Amino acid sequence: MSDTCTWAPDPDGDPALLPQTFGGFAAVAEIAPGTVIDTWTLDCFGGAVRSVTDLASRSASVMNPQTGPFHVTGAEPGDTLAVHFLSLRPRYGRGVSTTFPFFGALTGTHTTATLHPPLPERTWVYDLDLETWTARFAALDSDLTVDLPLDPMHGTVGVAPAGGEVRSTLAPGEWGGNLDTPEMRAGATCYLGVNVPGALFAFGDGHARQGEGETCGTAIECAMDTVLVVDLLKGVSTPWPRIEDDEYLMTTGSARPLEDAYRIAHAELVRWVAELTGLSQLDAYQFVSQTALSPAANVVDTQYTMIAKLPKRLLPASLRDQARGGVHRRLRERVQG
Amino acid sequence: MSDTCTWAPDPDGDPALLPQTFGGFAAVAEIAPGTVIDTWTLDCFGGAVRSVTDLASRSASVMNPQTGPFHVTGAEPGDTLAVHFLSLRPRYGRGVSTTFPFFGALTGTHTTATLHPPLPERTWVYDLDLETWTARFAALDSDLTVDLPLDPMHGTVGVAPAGGEVRSTLAPGEWGGNLDTPEMRAGATCYLGVNVPGALFAFGDGHARQGEGETCGTAIECAMDTVLVVDLLKGVSTPWPRIEDDEYLMTTGSARPLEDAYRIAHAELVRWVAELTGLSQLDAYQFVSQTALSPAANVVDTQYTMIAKLPKRLLPASLRDQARGGVHRRLRERVQG
Amino acid sequence: MSDTCTWAPDPDGDPALLPQTFGGFAAVAEIAPGTVIDTWTLDCFGGAVRSVTDLASRSASVMNPQTGPFHVTGAEPGDTLAVHFLSLRPRYGRGVSTTFPFFGALTGTHTTATLHPPLPERTWVYDLDLETWTARFAALDSDLTVDLPLDPMHGTVGVAPAGGEVRSTLAPGEWGGNLDTPEMRAGATCYLGVNVPGALFAFGDGHARQGEGETCGTAIECAMDTVLVVDLLKGVSTPWPRIEDDEYLMTTGSARPLEDAYRIAHAELVRWVAELTGLSQLDAYQFVSQTALSPAANVVDTQYTMIAKLPKRLLPASLRDQARGGVHRRLRERVQG
Amino acid sequence: MSDTCTWAPDPDGDPALLPQTFGGFAAVAEIAPGTVIDTWTLDCFGGAVRSVTDLASRSASVMNPQTGPFHVTGAEPGDTLAVHFLSLRPRYGRGVSTTFPFFGALTGTHTTATLHPPLPERTWVYDLDLETWTARFAALDSDLTVDLPLDPMHGTVGVAPAGGEVRSTLAPGEWGGNLDTPEMRAGATCYLGVNVPGALFAFGDGHARQGEGETCGTAIECAMDTVLVVDLLKGVSTPWPRIEDDEYLMTTGSARPLEDAYRIAHAELVRWVAELTGLSQLDAYQFVSQTALSPAANVVDTQYTMIAKLPKRLLPASLRDQARGGVHRRLRERVQG
Repeated sequence: MSDTCTWAPDPDGDPALLPQTFGGFAAVAEIAPGTVIDTWTLDCFGGAVRSVTDLASRSASVMNPQTGPFHVTGAEPGDTLAVHFLSLRPRYGRGVSTTFPFFGALTGTHTTATLHPPLPERTWVYDLDLETWTARFAALDSDLTVDLPLDPMHGTVGVAPAGGEVRSTLAPGEWGGNLDTPEMRAGATCYLGVNVPGALFAFGDGHARQGEGETCGTAIECAMDTVLVVDLLKGVSTPWPRIEDDEYLMTTGSARPLEDAYRIAHAELVRWVAELTGLSQLDAYQFVSQTALSPAANVVDTQYTMIAKLPKRLLPASLRDQARGGVHRRLRERVQG
Repeated sequence: MSDTCTWAPDPDGDPALLPQTFGGFAAVAEIAPGTVIDTWTLDCFGGAVRSVTDLASRSASVMNPQTGPFHVTGAEPGDTLAVHFLSLRPRYGRGVSTTFPFFGALTGTHTTATLHPPLPERTWVYDLDLETWTARFAALDSDLTVDLPLDPMHGTVGVAPAGGEVRSTLAPGEWGGNLDTPEMRAGATCYLGVNVPGALFAFGDGHARQGEGETCGTAIECAMDTVLVVDLLKGVSTPWPRIEDDEYLMTTGSARPLEDAYRIAHAELVRWVAELTGLSQLDAYQFVSQTALSPAANVVDTQYTMIAKLPKRLLPASLRDQARGGVHRRLRERVQG
Repeated sequence: MSDTCTWAPDPDGDPALLPQTFGGFAAVAEIAPGTVIDTWTLDCFGGAVRSVTDLASRSASVMNPQTGPFHVTGAEPGDTLAVHFLSLRPRYGRGVSTTFPFFGALTGTHTTATLHPPLPERTWVYDLDLETWTARFAALDSDLTVDLPLDPMHGTVGVAPAGGEVRSTLAPGEWGGNLDTPEMRAGATCYLGVNVPGALFAFGDGHARQGEGETCGTAIECAMDTVLVVDLLKGVSTPWPRIEDDEYLMTTGSARPLEDAYRIAHAELVRWVAELTGLSQLDAYQFVSQTALSPAANVVDTQYTMIAKLPKRLLPASLRDQARGGVHRRLRERVQG
Repeated sequence: MSDTCTWAPDPDGDPALLPQTFGGFAAVAEIAPGTVIDTWTLDCFGGAVRSVTDLASRSASVMNPQTGPFHVTGAEPGDTLAVHFLSLRPRYGRGVSTTFPFFGALTGTHTTATLHPPLPERTWVYDLDLETWTARFAALDSDLTVDLPLDPMHGTVGVAPAGGEVRSTLAPGEWGGNLDTPEMRAGATCYLGVNVPGALFAFGDGHARQGEGETCGTAIECAMDTVLVVDLLKGVSTPWPRIEDDEYLMTTGSARPLEDAYRIAHAELVRWVAELTGLSQLDAYQFVSQTALSPAANVVDTQYTMIAKLPKRLLPASLRDQARGGVHRRLRERVQG
């Protein structure tokens, strides 16, 4: 049996008081390893963008406010948090997405600096239907509507960074943060290396769904009711965030240019496969080269994120559930059992 | 009914006489649009690497020799070839993969120049079993073996480049070439813009399977028995190669850094969706942002390649088979009917 | 007449107590605009690497400890600090440089992740002669020695970042930080946008000299006796650090990939030239395209830095000293007069 | 005494008949090593852009037409051409520069694909005065004019590529080509590795001057009267083009992202210094790290080019003129003597 922590943002509170950084904030609660957190997160605009006439650059006073941070009892640098997502449900019947000036993959940005004026800023509102589990795309310039399957996920999941750094919730990196990968869905376990005592775990930026790469810079952004469990792996290090679900072992790399994000993720997967299988480094390199899937997560944030995914079914059967001491399966079974 | 062209490389010929460039070679045969080509392709090393003691850097005198080029009657600049793959079967019971000095995603290379000596050069040999449809990975430094499902594909598919250029079969680009994407499998239709009269279509570099990104630089390389049909879309332009199968509309971008490959592929997909649906550019940008899948193809060749994939099931039903005038479905039906 | 602030690190103190971040530290002193700071900075290793047998990865417990931060009275977000360097003199007769595992431009790194083992870690010690104003390169593996001219500079000059971030002194960015450009020498004025009340200015990482790009990852690192003056430009914003000396107007961009650093620096220079000359944006783009010099600063840090330099002699004579209200000339004249 | 070759383009000929590729063309003349070539080159637009109302995208039917190729007697793969520029003089009193749709460093391009419409296309005309040795910048949108010093150079200098490739004169690479570096001026010797019998040397794309990086995509483009001498170094290989003048040893790297161009150039310079001085690789890495200058050449072409420059005065005196067997000094003396 698990403890449950129900600390949650005040729905009537000022979103600007919530953390917009990983690091730099005192814990809102201390939880023991194994605790279930049952809470919710504000959307990336703090709820300020609600209609097609709201423009994020004018309406939103916050970006990616987080729920947390939570102090995990006993977590110390060199340990790993295992965060297993039990349930994600969009909290309201509304998601929004926007273009945002100088942000996105197909526009000049503050760093891919050009002399172009910004693309037009527009807001799309999606009706979210939890019965049919769909989000309705409605074109702004024509009549087309399309119902898209929901696939809820969290864009930001992370801990306080190393080296005393405090990082914007717009940035992904070794500490997790704004990875913006659709793999961070219910049923997945995210592994995060601990950098400071207590880890200071936080999360937010819920997406009703997103395409890989998050091309225009925003997903279908929504407040999220989320239930997760946090476990602690003592003495296990995790240089870059990893994700495991029933089907895949996944590694992440966050860097620019995008090939460096790819390199990090795949070097990590080579390492993971070698550890798990006893293969030599070169044999693991060969094995990963013929078996990995390699989707983009985000190609818009201050670092880009790539994922490397190994289908567990391609591993010897005896090893499929053995990664990281089998914690993913244990967490799955406990919450299902 | 279709004509069939059975021009094929001479199994006893010198691989060095086959094209190792797109452009720069006279056609081996002229075919009418609609012709089925039933032939085979040599592996990327011209068959010279056959055992774990063969090193590609010493044994191979060719790289990516092609079958072709074929002159397509009536093809002119501004048209598009539609190449539909009916069948790919590894020709021999053997596939090979290697590390190669200064080539691959996780090594210093000739362009990502470092002061490191090359990684060790090794050769892996895979037994290919067409009955069980598997390739057997056998570790070199331990006893592990794993049977991997076959998923045959062509690494190189292309036409003569524009502007009088002649390009190595190691390079991917607007003309196709060494895209190295696992999406180029049986059942897929590849669209290639025509740059010179007759198009001069060629293909090769068969892979029994590969991971996305082709991390170590080589797939499970094998000679391939291939049947495909070539059709011609007059007056239809294709700036970058596209692929369609029963499930996805796919665009490709080949460039460095990898984010530029991503940008090309996704800008092309935005364009394709806008054309197909009548959505405005910004609405199509939004739609693609929430629906596209974005896997790597190769992160090792002289340009890197990214794919953007739109699941057809997310399109309005009436549009799912309408891309490019419905040619993919027509080709499917003809060959199946 | 100026006030002088002589706050300085304790030569017998623990370097680990000095700031290794921009942001995150309380000011050591408050200074009025116009104050001269006469102090010194520790070298990047906190003085722990002193002989060819000291290895930085084992000996050094700090990286880039800073002198400061200084609170500048009246500085508020939206203002600009003008930091004019009067004098830089290596403090001791010794400089050191090293290779460092997985750090540098010609090696695999933590982000350009490869499977190579690290390059050998070596330490070079330079005798610094302030009389002849030279640093003696002495080869480790042969007898060659070469006397190189001193050209002292600071690798890190910065303020607290925006958005509540705290950033490692290994990172360069909008706040300055580890720009590692040889342009940061005596006679230069550095402009830094203010992000927090008091600006919290700090500096360190003295180099007796460095090549552009700082290829191996370290310069001729040395403790530095430095005199500078800090002025405040109220209501003047500076999105990215700029530098001015008697010969050049210079902009900086820090990002990856390196072309993004180039883009930022040159877009900033276009903006600066347009403001100063009244040229339209496109005319300024044209003018910069034919006149700018574009050296690398660093291609090794967590972001890379490029410089764009406009020779003032190519500007109309009446404008040469008018940038930013002529503050560079005023500071030059005051300290020389 | 030298032979002189005066083959030259026909001033009344069709520019479209001149080579727009390296490779793919038969030699216009055969020259012995040591031959002086006294000729001229058309500007990058084939002379079609002459006034501010001419737009390159409409007027120009060619891009970078070359003078040549010249077959150098006895040149074989594995040799090196040494091309020493004696004199470059703009041929007419006019230079032009333009923005060009989707080309340049501060705009979305065909590969840095965005959804922005192109920047406005504009043409600037420069009066070139060979007496005062200046080019007059005249703003289009205001009255400002500025006289800029001439610094004539060739944007394209190259040989036929390896591997049977034929490459557009818009591309730089191992074969030289569109390096677009201001270092390619009178007094410089360019070293090019030979890939095919006779080398097939060609050059063009004269610039009256350019900024480093060629930010807007074009320099002050002009037809050029050029005198150069071509020598042959038998058995000397040159993987990437090098340049030597009286002051500097220079290496080039052409690749994307820009850091790869930097890496190539600096790894080449480390190699060159090690060969010349007998330093070990790591000692040469250290020496280059403290002494190299690292300017951009172009950040706009299909590959970007970086230069690494070693000031000869920092080498031991006995070695300063010894690079590549002292050929630069011999060519200098011969033409001056």
